Amino acid sequence: MIDAAWLPARAWRAIGSRRIRVTGHGLLVDTVVDELRQACARFGGEVVRGTGGDPCDLEMSLGGDGSLGGEGYELSGDETCTVLRAGQPHGLLYGLFHLLRSDDSPATGVFRPAVPRRMLDHWDNVDVHPVMGQVERGYAGGSLFWRAGEPRRDLARVTAYARLLAACGINAVALNNVNVHATEARLLTDRLGEVAELAGVFRHYGIRTHLAVSFAAPVLHGMSTADPLDRRVRAWWESTTVDVYATIPDFGGYLVKADSEGQPGPFTYGRSHADGANMLADALARHGGVVHWRAFVYNHRQDWRDRGVDRARAAHDHFTPHDGTFRDNVVLQVKHGPLDFQAREPVSPLIAAMPDTRIGVEFQVTQEYTGQQRHVCYLAPMWSELLRGAHGPAVADSAAEFVAVANVGDDPFWTGHPLAQANLYAFGRLAWEPGLDPAALLDEWAGLTFPGAPRRLHDALHAIMDDSWRTYERYTAPLGVGFMVRPGHHYGPDVDGYEYTPWGTYHHADRDGVGVDRTVATGTGCAGLYPKPWAKIYESPDECPDELALFFHHLPYQHVLSSGVTVIQHIYDTHFAGAREAAEMRERWAGLAGTVPPAKYERVRELLDEQVRSAEEWRDQVNTYFFRKSGVPDARGRRIY
Amino acid sequence: MIDAAWLPARAWRAIGSRRIRVTGHGLLVDTVVDELRQACARFGGEVVRGTGGDPCDLEMSLGGDGSLGGEGYELSGDETCTVLRAGQPHGLLYGLFHLLRSDDSPATGVFRPAVPRRMLDHWDNVDVHPVMGQVERGYAGGSLFWRAGEPRRDLARVTAYARLLAACGINAVALNNVNVHATEARLLTDRLGEVAELAGVFRHYGIRTHLAVSFAAPVLHGMSTADPLDRRVRAWWESTTVDVYATIPDFGGYLVKADSEGQPGPFTYGRSHADGANMLADALARHGGVVHWRAFVYNHRQDWRDRGVDRARAAHDHFTPHDGTFRDNVVLQVKHGPLDFQAREPVSPLIAAMPDTRIGVEFQVTQEYTGQQRHVCYLAPMWSELLRGAHGPAVADSAAEFVAVANVGDDPFWTGHPLAQANLYAFGRLAWEPGLDPAALLDEWAGLTFPGAPRRLHDALHAIMDDSWRTYERYTAPLGVGFMVRPGHHYGPDVDGYEYTPWGTYHHADRDGVGVDRTVATGTGCAGLYPKPWAKIYESPDECPDELALFFHHLPYQHVLSSGVTVIQHIYDTHFAGAREAAEMRERWAGLAGTVPPAKYERVRELLDEQVRSAEEWRDQVNTYFFRKSGVPDARGRRIY
Repeated sequence: MIDAAWLPARAWRAIGSRRIRVTGHGLLVDTVVDELRQACARFGGEVVRGTGGDPCDLEMSLGGDGSLGGEGYELSGDETCTVLRAGQPHGLLYGLFHLLRSDDSPATGVFRPAVPRRMLDHWDNVDVHPVMGQVERGYAGGSLFWRAGEPRRDLARVTAYARLLAACGINAVALNNVNVHATEARLLTDRLGEVAELAGVFRHYGIRTHLAVSFAAPVLHGMSTADPLDRRVRAWWESTTVDVYATIPDFGGYLVKADSEGQPGPFTYGRSHADGANMLADALARHGGVVHWRAFVYNHRQDWRDRGVDRARAAHDHFTPHDGTFRDNVVLQVKHGPLDFQAREPVSPLIAAMPDTRIGVEFQVTQEYTGQQRHVCYLAPMWSELLRGAHGPAVADSAAEFVAVANVGDDPFWTGHPLAQANLYAFGRLAWEPGLDPAALLDEWAGLTFPGAPRRLHDALHAIMDDSWRTYERYTAPLGVGFMVRPGHHYGPDVDGYEYTPWGTYHHADRDGVGVDRTVATGTGCAGLYPKPWAKIYESPDECPDELALFFHHLPYQHVLSSGVTVIQHIYDTHFAGAREAAEMRERWAGLAGTVPPAKYERVRELLDEQVRSAEEWRDQVNTYFFRKSGVPDARGRRIY
Repeated sequence: MIDAAWLPARAWRAIGSRRIRVTGHGLLVDTVVDELRQACARFGGEVVRGTGGDPCDLEMSLGGDGSLGGEGYELSGDETCTVLRAGQPHGLLYGLFHLLRSDDSPATGVFRPAVPRRMLDHWDNVDVHPVMGQVERGYAGGSLFWRAGEPRRDLARVTAYARLLAACGINAVALNNVNVHATEARLLTDRLGEVAELAGVFRHYGIRTHLAVSFAAPVLHGMSTADPLDRRVRAWWESTTVDVYATIPDFGGYLVKADSEGQPGPFTYGRSHADGANMLADALARHGGVVHWRAFVYNHRQDWRDRGVDRARAAHDHFTPHDGTFRDNVVLQVKHGPLDFQAREPVSPLIAAMPDTRIGVEFQVTQEYTGQQRHVCYLAPMWSELLRGAHGPAVADSAAEFVAVANVGDDPFWTGHPLAQANLYAFGRLAWEPGLDPAALLDEWAGLTFPGAPRRLHDALHAIMDDSWRTYERYTAPLGVGFMVRPGHHYGPDVDGYEYTPWGTYHHADRDGVGVDRTVATGTGCAGLYPKPWAKIYESPDECPDELALFFHHLPYQHVLSSGVTVIQHIYDTHFAGAREAAEMRERWAGLAGTVPPAKYERVRELLDEQVRSAEEWRDQVNTYFFRKSGVPDARGRRIY
């Protein structure tokens, strides 16, 4: 039994009991009609197509002056009849889901997405990778698309998935892992049929399919070089791309992780990232495809002894010289932070630094560093802060599109942790409208997911989830310093786990203080890469937001933060508080027995046990580590081991 | 091309040019004759069998009064004729290899092994284990016996291996990993034919074959329980063992890791280790087989917060209550140290604490914690110290037999690092005669391995290898505190890698000091488990040998060691010294080009590059870690990062 997530049958009651007219034609209009017919069959309503006939209480039609764009729609009408009008079929589809989530009190107005592409990147492998498994950083079982090297062909499941994505506004997916291994490189060629089959499903929900490709694909297919300026290489990509579009006419494009963490790239041939990306862009342009070129480029063989090298600068330093040189159909895909999806980081300095480049900002819905879907960690508040610019330049001001790494798998609840469904939902909605309030999104998601649930369930979900990201932050790495996770799998604490490694993720704790000096005055200069006023704010230990204090500064344990407490006391206080909050989450959930389906209740209950255990482990390891180093006792005399 | 190791053809020159008479019959006499005939065919000598005929210059015969035992031999004679006499064919075989290594100046006298069984445990898997690979803790390629689930059937290679083992005195092997997975559990039953085939090869060199078995084997074969007191379980083992001996009449017995690191055992059924071991012993007794029951039992889910639990006590506390209750054909197999094959540990307190139990002491020839056959680390000096009792009770006084975990694989040099061959050779020789001098053993090994090599090669090997274990100790964990390795693979430094884990291997470093308080007065009491005078010596921080100072004591960084330097300065001094010595090894080896075969020279050269790199990494991580914690600068002002 697969969980219905935010599309349970019961959520369709209001719509399904109406008399509905749909005017217009096309694949997506058919999808809309099919959805409505299923709902009406269940709840007694009726769907009619075409103009004329008896009056309806929901009218859906195509038309208008084009101002609605490709995906926008307008809602109007009165108490007797709701009118949904869209310029294109996509708009009808999104309008339908709008009505669904607004239940019987739909807003009126014009609705358009903030950005034209809202994309999910799957990190699914075709073969089971010996270390990473079927899904890299996947915490929800196997892939929806492949199992042990073979396509799963569970198209009903993929259809259900495509519906869920459309219902939160996603319109693009990349199917496979950005670390493209040999088998996966064949998806572009010999195994294109598997891609076409999946693309056929996603197409029905307005979602275009993209592929992660290896920059070395020509070599993997027998050529002697992958030099992007080599005529034969360009011809190979052009002809390969022609074949792709012959098979998948609405194919989205290529996603590339090049010259990053061992993946091949143009550096091998002495070429630039722009050379590499533009070659692929040229092959895709006439078909309407795009290149997503990841900016996650840094030296992963750094010498920890060398404090002059700063991974947080790397993407900025690699890419800003190329601003304005990328083709129009290249999207530079930048992780939201300068390191790697930590629970707290500043915004990446690259995002605001390339005004003449199309920037796609990448979030991570899969909770690699935020509890791996064993911990409740509602990420919308974090994304919202970044989008709005709570502690730095607003991401929404610079982003031309939004991308996220997916968190689903073949788990019956889709996301492993049932409450992690909210992260996927919220990402889609924020990508459509970055100004949405995370608490309101939680209401939306909970309203759809638990239709008819008692008020106390909604109250409890807010109590558990609203602040859960900050709770997670409290019991893990303090004050923006990041990491402190077990190397490799990245779950659970290991304060020095990455401290003496080549990965560039350090905290520099010694007996006197902790944090990375990234100031211009005495550090790596990373603070100076930000626009006004942030460069100045970050540079000063007194003005820098507490949240990022140890990201930008190496501070003595006795340094007093803006909050009025010392760094060391902040570490103790937040770690005791975070673990206590996790225990409170568990207590609250225990009171919900009977209000959510038993299997879902039980899954969350078990996971909360693990979260409490893990939060206590984090608390004790981090507190002990810093007590042993600093020698400063907790001002409140609590137990530190 | 497989390296000849310590049996190159040229080593047979002196013997192969003689006229030799062999008297006696039996499988091993035939082996001796075959060896001699091959040597004589190459070097012009002659082998005759039976009594009478022309005088010979080497006479080998069976006979005597039985005082030589099953494996002993007597060498006598004069300059014209050497006489080798043995009570049993085994003695002729060992006498032959004695003559080989003594070249043309054989000692005279009577030679018998110190213990009747000198065993190698292979940790080979039949299937490739997803984490551990084909050989657990194997650093020399794949298994000699299996590849990817199938028998290799490379019997020529196994024959060459058996010769090498016999030539250093080994007379027993366990073929498979003590962590017995499902496939490997079938070696005892369905796949016994594979074992028989290998046993047939080893038999020709006087080596008996043992199997590691799962205590849960009855359950894996379909029964509902493995309770050692259950009549049906006992019957299953009895009948299974009858089948084993019907197929392999000289089968050695079972090796069992039970109730250890997740392996099944008698605890599941509320039974004791004695119950479990004795059940197997009863099944084996009438066939002449033995049980090797490993004492490596501890809580591997320990809470690091709880300083009252001490893994170093665990084996002692588990097993001493059962002294005198094991059957005569049970060997309790005890790792030499109380933790796990660290470069420096005290002797296990269990070894001298069970006078009424047959103790097999287990060493680790494979260099899991001593450089993984990428570092030169000649282990004979460490084993010799333990056997003699340099810093604790003498192992040789309590051990009834010696066992070691093997270090070979399908690597062309057998052991990955060509110089690691010396460890395998030396283990066999020390097991035969624990009082042998490690430097003399190095001469023996080098003389056989590099016949006719110039004096400067031998000098250089001594300079590189004699002190290499202490060099390794210097640049790794200090003063007996142990571990500080990367979790999982155990290669390279990670000072806090195991500090906050459930594995029981801690150093307790804080800003004031480091080490584990294992005293009776204020610590875990482990020091008190030793016999006189060691309990008292270990208890006192002033009397405790420096080598073990941090194993038994938590000491301030400014504590002055017996050597006259402080703990912190000792850490700095030894780490700078150890890394420098590694660099000196590399320089010495560079001077040997042309004196060793090019492939072997080149392999060692490459590995020394890695050793120097790794030693510097150890030096810098350990020094930086303790400088950051202690704040004490190096008295000599050297670079600490």
